[in-house]
Formats: sequence, structure tokens, C-alpha cells
Amino acid sequence: MKTTTLALAAGLILLYSTSHSDSPGVQGHNPAYTAEGHLIFPTDYREWVFLTAGLDMSYSDGMQMPHHMLDNVFVNPAAYKSFLATGTWPDGTMLVKENRRADTEGSINKSGQFQSTEIMGIEIHVKDVGHFQDQWAFFAFGDALEPAAMIPKAASCYSCHAAHAAVDRTFVQFYPTLLPIATAKGTLSEGYKHDESSRATKAAPPSHGAG
Amino acid sequence: MKTTTLALAAGLILLYSTSHSDSPGVQGHNPAYTAEGHLIFPTDYREWVFLTAGLDMSYSDGMQMPHHMLDNVFVNPAAYKSFLATGTWPDGTMLVKENRRADTEGSINKSGQFQSTEIMGIEIHVKDVGHFQDQWAFFAFGDALEPAAMIPKAASCYSCHAAHAAVDRTFVQFYPTLLPIATAKGTLSEGYKHDESSRATKAAPPSHGAG
Repeated sequence: MKTTTLALAAGLILLYSTSHSDSPGVQGHNPAYTAEGHLIFPTDYREWVFLTAGLDMSYSDGMQMPHHMLDNVFVNPAAYKSFLATGTWPDGTMLVKENRRADTEGSINKSGQFQSTEIMGIEIHVKDVGHFQDQWAFFAFGDALEPAAMIPKAASCYSCHAAHAAVDRTFVQFYPTLLPIATAKGTLSEGYKHDESSRATKAAPPSHGAG
Repeated sequence: MKTTTLALAAGLILLYSTSHSDSPGVQGHNPAYTAEGHLIFPTDYREWVFLTAGLDMSYSDGMQMPHHMLDNVFVNPAAYKSFLATGTWPDGTMLVKENRRADTEGSINKSGQFQSTEIMGIEIHVKDVGHFQDQWAFFAFGDALEPAAMIPKAASCYSCHAAHAAVDRTFVQFYPTLLPIATAKGTLSEGYKHDESSRATKAAPPSHGAG
């Protein structure tokens, strides 16, 4: 019995180390903070699950940028699997938005935009129920990827996400593989449904009868 | 000894099943074919490692499309890890290029492009040394994701990748996290280096001396 237990323990250690070698990042996939409450950057986010990419997206009219930008959104794998099952995000969700300079001229490319090696900031949206009064918090990281303080709650990202995000304060309307799941599971927010019905009304005004 | 072996085997089975439960897709991450040699679509590719996204990229002048398109490129995790270590692709590499219709009008978005739920074709580039005479082959999948026949070798994708791809017939020049690794490991192709030196010469023609 002792031999069996030891051998199984060896197998489990092997299992543990192998599953860790799947994620070369130093830390696991739960949000981690410094003693002063700053979010520690999750170095292995490029091996998380990709959700979407966009070019020069803006929620304001007339926004002009001095360069083109493509952004990529990643989520920690455990949160992704939970979303597939439930249509919403579990505690411990981390959404990483990586902004890259977009280029047209490069190699044999002639038109359109591709992602360059230059990162222009990374933002993280964290759901940590025991840690934040409103469950979710935003963080912005600079070039050095030093631990970041929470963006103050007065920032417009909080009010905009609260009013318009499709699921649990996140812009699932821009995550094409997850929007159908949220729709099927009935987890779309009232704010999003209101926005969509307003857009539909604007797009197709009611026809006037002859009388 | 027998007990130990059995118990270790149990541990390994546990290890195997756990690592598979990380990937909800039905099949593993190696290329699989039907009896007639058609590539079976890897249903879990959205949980593979994301490499890059681009908008309306074209290698030809004057290319016009009736709509905007954003494409996402994914690679199987084992091939990704091998690339991080070696700067090139191992046998069994599968690169998946997913093309999506890009929209501007949607939810609260005002400008730029985001990815819609409409997939406009998926292409896969496979390295399978024992299977293809030239190691690599391209496949294109339609809406039904039925097993696909290899694209004939006369197609321009093969000659273009052979002439211009940065690493082992793949466009690593557009994979921003991998290009620095290939550069550091010295795995850039002669064709790519020639293209880059030609571009640099054009961008900065030699200055003429006063004499």
C-alpha cells in the first residue's frame, strides 16, 4: 500500500508539473496583487483563450488617432470554460486587452493592416468579488508591466460598461464566439437589449399607413 | 515493483485524461485525415494559441473586397511551445486562419472595425513530414467544415510562401510575438532576409557624394 501511495503521489507530482509546464508564465490564472493592492501582470496571457481583435474601435464620434491600432482580447482559460457552460463570467475572470500598433507597409503586404511588434498599452478587466466593492475593476499597464493600481471608479470605462455591456459589464457583443452562447443562455443585460432595440427602431422606422 | 508500475500507469492515465479535459474539442491536436486523405477540421482550434489578427491584408496591388474582413491565426499548443524553444515549427504543426466579416456599425461602436459572428472561410496550413511530399500543405474549409482535400500544389499560396515566408514557409513576419524569437534563434529564411534588405534599400537609397 505504501508503495502504491508513493507511486500515485509521484504520478500526481508529474501531473502537476506537466500541467504547469503547459503555462510557462510564472503565476497561475487567478488575479494576484501586491501588498498595496496593485494587480500583478499575468505574464502568460498570450497563452490564454483569444476572444476577438478589432481595428481602431471607438465609442465616441470623431475620434482621431495618430496611428492605426489593432487590439487583441484574451481571457483566462478557467473563466472561458465557465462562460461556455453558463453564459456569464465566474469570480476570478481576467480579460486582457492588448493594443498593438498596426502597420500596412511590411514584408510583401500591400494593403490592409497587420499587427506590429510594438505594444501600445495593455488593459485588464478583473472580476474579483471578494476584492472589489463592485466586483469588477480596470487596470492599465505601461511598457514596464509593473503592478498597476486600480483605475479610479469615476473613470468613464466603468459607467460605459455598466450601461452598455452585453453580459455582466463586459462587451460580449464584440466577442463573436461568446455572443451566441449568452443569447442562448439568456444572460444578456437589460442595457444591451435596450440599445439593440433602439438601434433596430432607428434602422427600420415604422411605415406609415395610407389613412 | 508490479504495484509501483500499475500505480504509475494509473497516474499517467490521470495525467492524460486531465490534459485532455483542458481541451474540450473532440480530437487531439495532431492533423487527422479521412481514409481518402482529406484533413479533418480541428473543432477546438479556438482554444489553441492565438498568433495574430489582420484587417483586409493583401499581397497584391489594387485588391478590392466587397466587405471588410478581419482574420485570426491560431496554432496548436504543442507546436507553439516547440517554436518558443527552437524558432521553427515541428512536425504536426497546424496553423488555422479564420476569416470573419468585419463590421463598423454595431452596439455602441462608432468607427473602426470589430469581428462579427459571420465566418467567411477557414484555411489551414499543415506540416506533416510523413504525409506530404513537401512537408507542408494548405486546406480550405467551407461553412459545413467538412473534411477538405489538399489545395493543389500549383496554387499561388505555395510558391508565395516558399519565396517570402520568414520561417519554414510560414509568415512569421506577421506573428509579432514569434518574429523576435525567430530573429534571435537565427531561423529567418534567406528569401525573407532578401526581401527585407530590398525594402531597406528602397526606403533609404544610398546618398550620392558631392564628387
